[in-house]
Amino acid sequence: MLNNIKIIDGGICAVEDVKAAGSRVGKYGLAVIESKNSTASGVFTSNKVVAAPVIHTREMIKGGKLSLVVVNSGNANCFTGEEGVADCVKTIKFASELTGVSADEIATASTGVIGRKMPMDTILPLVEESISKLENSPENSTEAAKSLMTTDTYHKEFAVEVALEEGTVKIGGITKGVGMIAPNMGTMLCFLATDAVISSEDINKALKEAVNKSFNMIVVDGDESTNDMALLMANGKSDVEVVKDGVIDENFQEALNFICISLAKMMARDGEGATKFIECKVNGAKSDEDAIKASKSVISSSLVKSAIFGGDPNWGRIVAAVGYSGCEMDQTMITIALSDDNGNESILVNKGEILAFDGTESLKKAEEIMQEKHVNILVDLYQGNSTATAWGCDLTYDYVKINAEYTT
Amino acid sequence: MLNNIKIIDGGICAVEDVKAAGSRVGKYGLAVIESKNSTASGVFTSNKVVAAPVIHTREMIKGGKLSLVVVNSGNANCFTGEEGVADCVKTIKFASELTGVSADEIATASTGVIGRKMPMDTILPLVEESISKLENSPENSTEAAKSLMTTDTYHKEFAVEVALEEGTVKIGGITKGVGMIAPNMGTMLCFLATDAVISSEDINKALKEAVNKSFNMIVVDGDESTNDMALLMANGKSDVEVVKDGVIDENFQEALNFICISLAKMMARDGEGATKFIECKVNGAKSDEDAIKASKSVISSSLVKSAIFGGDPNWGRIVAAVGYSGCEMDQTMITIALSDDNGNESILVNKGEILAFDGTESLKKAEEIMQEKHVNILVDLYQGNSTATAWGCDLTYDYVKINAEYTT
Repeated sequence: MLNNIKIIDGGICAVEDVKAAGSRVGKYGLAVIESKNSTASGVFTSNKVVAAPVIHTREMIKGGKLSLVVVNSGNANCFTGEEGVADCVKTIKFASELTGVSADEIATASTGVIGRKMPMDTILPLVEESISKLENSPENSTEAAKSLMTTDTYHKEFAVEVALEEGTVKIGGITKGVGMIAPNMGTMLCFLATDAVISSEDINKALKEAVNKSFNMIVVDGDESTNDMALLMANGKSDVEVVKDGVIDENFQEALNFICISLAKMMARDGEGATKFIECKVNGAKSDEDAIKASKSVISSSLVKSAIFGGDPNWGRIVAAVGYSGCEMDQTMITIALSDDNGNESILVNKGEILAFDGTESLKKAEEIMQEKHVNILVDLYQGNSTATAWGCDLTYDYVKINAEYTT
Repeated sequence: MLNNIKIIDGGICAVEDVKAAGSRVGKYGLAVIESKNSTASGVFTSNKVVAAPVIHTREMIKGGKLSLVVVNSGNANCFTGEEGVADCVKTIKFASELTGVSADEIATASTGVIGRKMPMDTILPLVEESISKLENSPENSTEAAKSLMTTDTYHKEFAVEVALEEGTVKIGGITKGVGMIAPNMGTMLCFLATDAVISSEDINKALKEAVNKSFNMIVVDGDESTNDMALLMANGKSDVEVVKDGVIDENFQEALNFICISLAKMMARDGEGATKFIECKVNGAKSDEDAIKASKSVISSSLVKSAIFGGDPNWGRIVAAVGYSGCEMDQTMITIALSDDNGNESILVNKGEILAFDGTESLKKAEEIMQEKHVNILVDLYQGNSTATAWGCDLTYDYVKINAEYTT
């Protein structure tokens, strides 16, 4: 299915005519992304407490058009009242004057500490600097991605091209987010651009589907941020229509899902303090909802996460997490296996029968797999045909350290 | 309201005719509690994966009668198939022979590692030893409580007497549980006895109410165990009827709630690796459900827990946790305050207005409160009149350490 999709360089700037730039002063970063005359859609946090840029962008994106995005890191502009929204408007007006882009096609996003006023004396010069550096180049995508970083340990960008019947379409993206990554996304920002031709309505459907399969399936600590946002812009430069008779081309959707999953996995791998990346695939669930519940429950369990940090193939905690997830299950039917990326696999429990006793080959192999940086958990429920995959990371001393010392 | 309630010594043995004993070999502990000819009720884990003693006790307690409880720690007897249930039956038969108590009035409970067969060669001699030591004495309650401990750092027992119109009633209890304490209880065991006269039906109602206000309101890490159980036995020795015309005496219920809350708080305080005890009270919620959701969400948030470990009055994380809890709220109306047990209080956010800026007295005081061992969080939503309180602990390096190294 992925035969049509090719990973390419260039991040968000892999897409023709998409310009980006980033700048930074101390703990404050600022990225600008330009994708002129694009159709656009956004997905936002479902937290009832939302930051000023979420309030503003959620409204303006209803127009379905976007040309410019201005993103700052270091201050969330959340719980900042009317002044916070005014600061968004001020930033947009300033960017509009500098670029000539109409204010109603400019979105803002923020990430950082909650409840502090925006340091506009620092932010506005950064906006000016980034806008002056806007360019369509791989280096500029990287700079923009870097300027989004808060507790991220590396920048995140990805790009693909996908061969469709009528031509090739590119999709590129940059993202940040490690801390509060959670169901429904937590302090994650993602900006995607494509040269596909797609209407404002269809782009919304495509983005939602991709977000549900990717960012909504990663969990670092279960907290959900006030600032999460994923935006997709389509500038149509490829002249390739990706929707026919109201149906989104499945290869395009697949490519969009793939880039979002790739970026989501980069985030999970960079979870705060993480030393290991965990993938949990649940097969044989009675419904899609059950598969999602079970896989997320395992990935979210502090006990499973701690066990993986400690290299302990504690399948009892995996079984318990499936058991309290709310999915349909039968403990005499469940299968649990671990695998790594080198092709090693160990079945710990086979249809309810424990194989991993002390001294068994199964347990020995599982302990070896647990030493790898990438641990896959496979759960088969034998209740139906639904499947889901969730991603996360281990719970470590450093997670506690990072979050105990964040604002002080 | 608590004027009628007096805290007394003796733990579960504070209640007349209730005998207890505990014994231990290495990591295996065994407690026996005898409360002959009692009406009884139990509340059990809602995990779909349940241990053999849960399967067995959940069924036998439907008879509403109990005389003896046999509890082992060190092995959960979970995911042990038919052999596990057979081991329960074997234990009960053995205890029945030694005590003369009918097998259908003997309950079992277990806590410990999942998926390992019960070491019956170790367990049965411990059963014999504990039964031979059964006695109604404060020391024996303590020994029984100690033998339940796994990663608990101290034993937990509590007793009260409550003056009712027709006489005085006593309630005593022992409990264990630190790790997977969670909504709906996690690896917690609680055994309560009273000398009240109460029918099997009414005792069920009374216990459920008390559990909902206590054990279901503590959270350590959000994982839910396969072995949780709370049992209440009433031997009627006081001759005081606590139910009239089908209505449970509110002072008796209050006393039962109080002992359960006291034991629950002991557990939260002893959460794995905890250095601080956290209480979160939510006022002004639109409904009881909303109040419970909001208070538990704050107590469960890894980010809030890490911040408290670090002594950081990061109210933004508290607001965010309320925001994603699903309760009705308005961020321009919320009030958040911190207090300690010395009477210090600091309002961080007052009806949506931030008071705790850098350099303010409010923030300084909040930082001082954060240095205390007991931190109270008060949230007022101003959406209605419902209120709820939840308890938990901070997230520390030691939590990770304990859980990374549990089985290995």
